[in-house]
Amino acid sequence: MPTPPLPQHLDEFLQGANPSVIGTADADGTPHTAATWYLWEGGRVLVNMDATRKRLEHLRSDPRVSITVMGRGDDWYKQVTLRGRVAEIADDPELEGIDRLCKHYMGSEYGARDQQRVNAWIEVESWYSWNGGGPWR
Amino acid sequence: MPTPPLPQHLDEFLQGANPSVIGTADADGTPHTAATWYLWEGGRVLVNMDATRKRLEHLRSDPRVSITVMGRGDDWYKQVTLRGRVAEIADDPELEGIDRLCKHYMGSEYGARDQQRVNAWIEVESWYSWNGGGPWR
Repeated sequence: MPTPPLPQHLDEFLQGANPSVIGTADADGTPHTAATWYLWEGGRVLVNMDATRKRLEHLRSDPRVSITVMGRGDDWYKQVTLRGRVAEIADDPELEGIDRLCKHYMGSEYGARDQQRVNAWIEVESWYSWNGGGPWR
Repeated sequence: MPTPPLPQHLDEFLQGANPSVIGTADADGTPHTAATWYLWEGGRVLVNMDATRKRLEHLRSDPRVSITVMGRGDDWYKQVTLRGRVAEIADDPELEGIDRLCKHYMGSEYGARDQQRVNAWIEVESWYSWNGGGPWR
């Protein structure tokens, strides 16, 4: 599997407000997946979770993740999958992280101001791409 | 996490030609994710892979999977995640499985007639849903 940096056209693609699904492992190794907002920050990936999420516990004990980013609408067969690990987890008391994500996807600040949120930054170690018929070069 | 059967509105949703991402574990437990076509067959999930896919090897040694199915287009925040295990893996020499998937998503038979394909059926053991603000009831 290729390692970073990603080619420019995929770097640009990842900057879009695309659907994505994050895969993690439960304590006993069972795969877990969930659709998520993400932000591509020059090679790192920011995701943000409710502080009560079970997934957060799992990420603290096993930081390995895989995140598949898809094209929007009918372009979802175009995909870039980033694999790596959570390098940093930090509380988001001012909701700065979730606000950035919400502005990116929805154009406005996050509505639920009373939530405890947490930022997690993923370091990408390998990746692959697919455009429907082969690697998306 | 709730167990099957799913409520009727989610059963109906899963019958659509929706984007989905499947999560599996590599031999060393590293999460792997990939966008995939799926078919909801009355409680079981059919997916189909190229016979050379690394993922197939991993599924034979660890059949646990998680598959997140999203609404189409801008509705991708609506999601149903099905967790379970691959109960059956079978060669698809006549391309019957991949043709059914391709017709469901693209309205026509699969183009690449010289591929070795494999069907895998997932038994759902638990699931959860999300509509953006809470469980999708």
